[in-house]
Amino acid sequence: MSARLPDGVRVLCEGRFLTLVDDGGWEYVTRAGVAGIVVIVAITDAGQLVLVEQHRPAVRRRVIELPAGLVGDTADRRTEDFGEAARRELEEETGYAAREMVELAEGPVAVGVSDETVRFFHARGLTRVGAGGGDDTEDITVHEVALGDLAAFLADGKRRGLDVDAKIFAGLYLIGPVSGARP
Amino acid sequence: MSARLPDGVRVLCEGRFLTLVDDGGWEYVTRAGVAGIVVIVAITDAGQLVLVEQHRPAVRRRVIELPAGLVGDTADRRTEDFGEAARRELEEETGYAAREMVELAEGPVAVGVSDETVRFFHARGLTRVGAGGGDDTEDITVHEVALGDLAAFLADGKRRGLDVDAKIFAGLYLIGPVSGARP
Repeated sequence: MSARLPDGVRVLCEGRFLTLVDDGGWEYVTRAGVAGIVVIVAITDAGQLVLVEQHRPAVRRRVIELPAGLVGDTADRRTEDFGEAARRELEEETGYAAREMVELAEGPVAVGVSDETVRFFHARGLTRVGAGGGDDTEDITVHEVALGDLAAFLADGKRRGLDVDAKIFAGLYLIGPVSGARP
Repeated sequence: MSARLPDGVRVLCEGRFLTLVDDGGWEYVTRAGVAGIVVIVAITDAGQLVLVEQHRPAVRRRVIELPAGLVGDTADRRTEDFGEAARRELEEETGYAAREMVELAEGPVAVGVSDETVRFFHARGLTRVGAGGGDDTEDITVHEVALGDLAAFLADGKRRGLDVDAKIFAGLYLIGPVSGARP
């Protein structure tokens, strides 16, 4: 794997998924064999934002997030494109299929610790086709929240000790003005 | 440092700044001796968003970002509160002092790789008091961009090979509707 790293980048250690490197005095982690990350802003025809909630070991609590996932992380997905990955992750995690999956923006979110960049998609024309809940390794609760109730829903989650992933706000900004969906 | 980690968390390796850990099969990095991260949405009285641009080794390119920084990362800042840190980082990076620094939201942004959470602040009543540019280790370019020109500014940056940090969009959502500032 080290062969994939650019000149001047030194591997400090390799975990099973993440590699910690030193790049001229800067440290960050890189994830081998992953093409990127997709994050999906999915809004039902009834104007509800589809959110997922799952335990996240890094923060030791449950986190409310947009549906999201890794692209190209298994052998059968090496050639998967980002739009396909967004459809797959949305359906796996939430049980919703999307008629349209429109790319919104791409960029890093934590460039001080990671080389990850995320690509945001807008899922429209949703149809419930399954239960969601994630794959065998995941335990995901799905929430559909009317945009006008979002601020109260998130505040209530915080009061109950959950974290709110800030990518939710980025995604809502990127889809443009939506009635009532203010923080 | 390992003594600070919760039960069941195993250190895979310690860099100078980041520690890669395994937590029951989940891997992420943690940064010792840092209380958190502040991110500042600073808008001048003329309606310009204050952005910073700097080289980021993790993505090997220059990145356009909101002003941001670590809280409590040096011995003299151990007791610094988040609002103070936001004022300090804004002034160091951009040369702007703020009359008001209002907390907007807090949450993780990359919970699959890091235990970091970021706290967003809204800086108002800006006065230019210095040149900005960051501390001795930083080489930061400051941009003031009219909100109505932001989409074009970011698109032009992307064309020139820069990355755009998605926390910009989260910050703009959190401050509420601002005329013309659409993606």
